[in-house]
Amino acid sequence: MTDQQLAVTVVGLGPMGAALATALLDRGHDVTVWNRSPGKDGPLVAKGARRADDIVDAVSAGRLLVVCLADYDALYSALGPADEALRGRVLVNLNSGTPKEANEALRWAEQRGAGYLDGAIMVPPAMVGHPGSVFLYSGSTEIFEEYEKTLADLGDPVHLGTEPGLAVLYNTALLSMMYASMNGFLHAAALVGSAGVSATEFTKLAVEWFLPSVIGEIIKAEAPTLDKGEYPGDAGSLAMNVTTLKHIIGTSHEQGVPTGIPAANLRLLEQAVEAGFGESSYLAVIEVLKKGAS
Amino acid sequence: MTDQQLAVTVVGLGPMGAALATALLDRGHDVTVWNRSPGKDGPLVAKGARRADDIVDAVSAGRLLVVCLADYDALYSALGPADEALRGRVLVNLNSGTPKEANEALRWAEQRGAGYLDGAIMVPPAMVGHPGSVFLYSGSTEIFEEYEKTLADLGDPVHLGTEPGLAVLYNTALLSMMYASMNGFLHAAALVGSAGVSATEFTKLAVEWFLPSVIGEIIKAEAPTLDKGEYPGDAGSLAMNVTTLKHIIGTSHEQGVPTGIPAANLRLLEQAVEAGFGESSYLAVIEVLKKGAS
Repeated sequence: MTDQQLAVTVVGLGPMGAALATALLDRGHDVTVWNRSPGKDGPLVAKGARRADDIVDAVSAGRLLVVCLADYDALYSALGPADEALRGRVLVNLNSGTPKEANEALRWAEQRGAGYLDGAIMVPPAMVGHPGSVFLYSGSTEIFEEYEKTLADLGDPVHLGTEPGLAVLYNTALLSMMYASMNGFLHAAALVGSAGVSATEFTKLAVEWFLPSVIGEIIKAEAPTLDKGEYPGDAGSLAMNVTTLKHIIGTSHEQGVPTGIPAANLRLLEQAVEAGFGESSYLAVIEVLKKGAS
Repeated sequence: MTDQQLAVTVVGLGPMGAALATALLDRGHDVTVWNRSPGKDGPLVAKGARRADDIVDAVSAGRLLVVCLADYDALYSALGPADEALRGRVLVNLNSGTPKEANEALRWAEQRGAGYLDGAIMVPPAMVGHPGSVFLYSGSTEIFEEYEKTLADLGDPVHLGTEPGLAVLYNTALLSMMYASMNGFLHAAALVGSAGVSATEFTKLAVEWFLPSVIGEIIKAEAPTLDKGEYPGDAGSLAMNVTTLKHIIGTSHEQGVPTGIPAANLRLLEQAVEAGFGESSYLAVIEVLKKGAS
């Protein structure tokens, strides 16, 4: 059996699970599918997937088991009846969850004699199997390398390290960043919108230029400073940024635009000033966001 | 006199004003400089700038007057004594401020028979005159076009429209977006940092890939929806994102990382749900950020 014809089972056939199974079928794999509630596998069977009779049959169909359910509880609930069949298989779990849950799932799999990789899918179902699709994995390097070629058929596989919680932690961190950036854009769009500028027009500067070329470049340039943990304020202090944020809030008021977003950012900066970082550079803000900061 | 040898006066020689004067000198312009407090023009005079005797001399030296002071009050205070000399000149004002202040400055200049362009500098002093440097302008199209070639010696000039407040409004909106994105990144870096991942390592995925290729592409794709003001939730509801943000907050707690950033984003989403947008798409959040929303 060549890697191109690897037998893979996909458990969980929601929109994402179905996209995973489709991508594997498209690349010529021997795919078995299973979903707890019936009726979701029709289009996949039509494309050549085999419908498992039950979860034991599904787990037994191949060595690699890709699970895409709502959460870790759903994982235990779905695979529990196949306890014995799991021995010697490799479980790639793509649920959302916390690092603690990922670690527990690793132990659960090991207790049943199964290999385990935790993963996170960073793209919507429509992008699975297409270029630019990124999948994050954490856990055993050996297992990752053994299945890397097959996992690459789903999307670019990135192995973050052996600590099993890293994939869900990265996923959570990136999503947190996305909400903050997205809401920041929406406030900015509302602000220029108050003068009749369309969001589409605004993206030309805000997203095609400012987001990657200013914000992105600043972050990349300053990341080593964050790692060093020293924040000299010679080129501009955190306190100066408090003034700028107050100006942003004043302008928002003048334009009749709600100030929730800049006010939340101001609160954070004021917290950093209270913690003694007023004369440090802006980056000292991370000190009040770090593990253990109150 | 060709455009390359245009006589330009620069008023205000802080780090940014000095960078403007230097860029103009480097491009062969006949530059006169003036600063209220003495001692800042030495390096510029050494490079060929002429030191004005007083503000009337400064204003009278050429047709184009570039002003880079702290705020609009400083503008009136500095140029007030040169009221008569302003007639027939063009004032390009690069102060920070609000759209209302920009409109008032236009009227102030017009009352003195001067042309007026409002502007905002989107880069630090070190980037002035270098590729990738963007300057935003708003006000008279005729004045902008007449001086566009000279303004291009400072940085890429972007004319946003005739409404004089647009440059400072864009500037404020982009800065608001920057604080939100930056703080979002810092929370995310703190979150992966709780598992020992360095900020530098995290930028490889977060900034080199996720920020432009996921966040930026989503915003660009969705901007027309924002302009249309209709937010069908078929592909995923705002309420689902409330669940995801609660998960981000839960993971932050589990990792011992403060939750201020995701909590502020959650509050905003909950406000949108309360306003009746729970079953709409995520983008409906802008409805609670728009002008006039309570």
